[in-house]
Amino acid sequence: MPRKIVIIGANAAGVHAANAARKTDPKAEITLIDKEPYPAYSRCGIPYVLGGEIPGFEDLMAFPPSHYRMMKFHLHLESIARSINPNDNIVLVEDKDGNFEALKYDSLIYAAGADPFVIPIEGHNLPGVFAMRTVDDGKAIQEAMKTAKSAVVIGAGFIGLETAHALATNKIKTTIVEVVPYILPALFDEDMADYTQKKIEGHGINVKVGGRVDAILGKDKVEGVSVAGQEVKADIVVMAAGIRPRTDLIRGLGVELGVTRAIRVNPRMETSVSGIFAAGDCVESQSSITGLPCLYQLGTNAVRQGTAAGVNAAGGYAANPRVICSAVSKIFDFELGAVGLSEYQAAKVGFQTVSSSITGKTRAPYFPGGKEVKVKIIAEPVLGRIMGAQLVGGEDVAQRINMLSVAIQKEMTALELSAADTSYAPPVAETVEPVATAAEVVAKKIRQRARR
Amino acid sequence: MPRKIVIIGANAAGVHAANAARKTDPKAEITLIDKEPYPAYSRCGIPYVLGGEIPGFEDLMAFPPSHYRMMKFHLHLESIARSINPNDNIVLVEDKDGNFEALKYDSLIYAAGADPFVIPIEGHNLPGVFAMRTVDDGKAIQEAMKTAKSAVVIGAGFIGLETAHALATNKIKTTIVEVVPYILPALFDEDMADYTQKKIEGHGINVKVGGRVDAILGKDKVEGVSVAGQEVKADIVVMAAGIRPRTDLIRGLGVELGVTRAIRVNPRMETSVSGIFAAGDCVESQSSITGLPCLYQLGTNAVRQGTAAGVNAAGGYAANPRVICSAVSKIFDFELGAVGLSEYQAAKVGFQTVSSSITGKTRAPYFPGGKEVKVKIIAEPVLGRIMGAQLVGGEDVAQRINMLSVAIQKEMTALELSAADTSYAPPVAETVEPVATAAEVVAKKIRQRARR
Repeated sequence: MPRKIVIIGANAAGVHAANAARKTDPKAEITLIDKEPYPAYSRCGIPYVLGGEIPGFEDLMAFPPSHYRMMKFHLHLESIARSINPNDNIVLVEDKDGNFEALKYDSLIYAAGADPFVIPIEGHNLPGVFAMRTVDDGKAIQEAMKTAKSAVVIGAGFIGLETAHALATNKIKTTIVEVVPYILPALFDEDMADYTQKKIEGHGINVKVGGRVDAILGKDKVEGVSVAGQEVKADIVVMAAGIRPRTDLIRGLGVELGVTRAIRVNPRMETSVSGIFAAGDCVESQSSITGLPCLYQLGTNAVRQGTAAGVNAAGGYAANPRVICSAVSKIFDFELGAVGLSEYQAAKVGFQTVSSSITGKTRAPYFPGGKEVKVKIIAEPVLGRIMGAQLVGGEDVAQRINMLSVAIQKEMTALELSAADTSYAPPVAETVEPVATAAEVVAKKIRQRARR
Repeated sequence: MPRKIVIIGANAAGVHAANAARKTDPKAEITLIDKEPYPAYSRCGIPYVLGGEIPGFEDLMAFPPSHYRMMKFHLHLESIARSINPNDNIVLVEDKDGNFEALKYDSLIYAAGADPFVIPIEGHNLPGVFAMRTVDDGKAIQEAMKTAKSAVVIGAGFIGLETAHALATNKIKTTIVEVVPYILPALFDEDMADYTQKKIEGHGINVKVGGRVDAILGKDKVEGVSVAGQEVKADIVVMAAGIRPRTDLIRGLGVELGVTRAIRVNPRMETSVSGIFAAGDCVESQSSITGLPCLYQLGTNAVRQGTAAGVNAAGGYAANPRVICSAVSKIFDFELGAVGLSEYQAAKVGFQTVSSSITGKTRAPYFPGGKEVKVKIIAEPVLGRIMGAQLVGGEDVAQRINMLSVAIQKEMTALELSAADTSYAPPVAETVEPVATAAEVVAKKIRQRARR
């Protein structure tokens, strides 16, 4: 009998789990269930379709339909897993016509993802209020943008900023509202956030930080929001206030959640219920830096976790990847990146930190077209280990984040990074790499501290 | 009495030595001697002035004249150090008018750089034959380019390719001649060199590899070159056949040279003659990877070595930086980069290697404008350590080289690099970073090898 693998969720984690399972066991029966009408697509691309950088939503599909046929996956779209019976190893699935099917499994991979957090305030159900999670959300926003003059984005994470960028690019007067006193609170510290906020404001976006949305206003449809008592007009409101792991189906089975309220898995991506694996946005990770549980809901993590879950579910061996949290984005004419811990996050788990931020250039100062790049580096002051970094720059931020991610992975110290043998040529780099300069200032501060 | 520091050579190594000496000893008397009419400028920028990317040679000056005044440096330009007396600590200097001056020193820093290697063949003295080393070389080539229809560049290193790019950009029919059977022999292996050669040929440049230049042809001025018996017409010939450490002044003093024929220095950049330090293109380095002496004549090394020499010469303590050799360039619409050892170089010092090259994209496949990037990674097959990498891509090569340089510095294995937590966003990166993919293939090959 071939091994039966059922995967709930056919997006980044689910389909990469299926791909890995197929490679591990060429004969397995692999079934994917997803409530959306499309299998794996790039959620990260949705704001860029709205902004016009990517031609259409159909471009976001991760694999062509032939991939699913070639891999012999049974793909159940517009279908919802209604219940799981872990004693008899059965998933009950309902299709769009209301038909139920009982799917037997040997291994189950739960990759159901996350739901956008809709703040339960007055008016949150009004027409014109959108989430930013699915292609259908994107299509609805695209339609609404045709007539909208103004918009409010609630939440100033990467998705919020990318949505605001898309709205502003379509000449819609846009306001971002963030309850924390600075933008990008999950990635940046206040200094780098303030620097970024000024750049965003320079592109005509209104940014309100430290203000809670009291209500969404309007009678039959959205007309505005009330922020800390102040009214902001809006034809569109996008809730980009984070996503919550989807765990409702699985909690009742005795599957344990972690401190982050996401699913806890063991070193092989298996949940506390034997035979049920989990991966992606619904799963808790372990930080490479702190060793502590953490929740970084990134596409890269979903792909790696999904791959590991797929190998294990198919009888192979793969380890749960630890995460550093490397994240980048691009809006307007600049890129944003963060890796590791912010100073705020480090302090929260008990680390002391020393940090420095410097501004450099992406090319030799005399080579035309060079862009500014601001680099903040954070280190632990006793061992000197790099704990995190934050970058904002006109170009080449993503690969600098990768350099810093490798440095963190290999427990590099600020002093070692300051001596990195970086490359130089006038059209593509400065003689002394700004990342190395920032590390040098951190290393100096650590030495001064040691002298005291 | 203030400490007297005399520095022979006022380019990257010399001026950075002076800057570091000034910081270490604010009262020192610091004198710089250089035979050129300009102090520190970017040699790397010269081909880009010829190509029109950088407006003029004056843009290449590393520091404004005020810097030298502010730092209280005594700057002797158009002056030549004629002899050094290490018993009495005196340098004899001749200025452009033929006047001699005896400069007393407590510490001497020899940063005289290197001379372009002019192949001593028939016709090498003809008008129209140029080196590519100094601003004056650049100005002479710029003048000759005004009327030239065709050119030959001898040597297919970065400087040769950048020169050919500049000539072709000025619509001069250009041929590159390289005696080794592939281009970039000091940085690339043949596979990556061939890939690059095709790209260069695609831009209309004629590339002749594996052919020695027998003679430079012409009566009163250059008319062509003879390559392996074949004649190539040329109004301009540029010799870009490497540079040789300038050691003539110092050899007679008993200063030891290393196996690379460059000056051997101790861990504090001091030569075998006490009180004489050396830095820059005339100095032998030590490889971080092999521990062996090596000669990488790069601006980045010159700056680091100069800084260390300056600190030590002024009574401080700084260690001779080991080198990995991170090098990048940009020509036409692509970037080239290399770090660490090529397979050829690794074999030469006795390492076995496993390598892989893959082609990826610099953005998500569906995000318009992404460029191809080809990545070759080389690892030692027992410990799995990354030994080197070679990249060719439309963008973002320099920072990938830096990521790989950090990986080599921290002795990362191919397996560790394959698991790197890299960043992703559609406009700036793929979900799985091509460098990680290349490392994954190498790691697989190492596992397969272990099984045999």
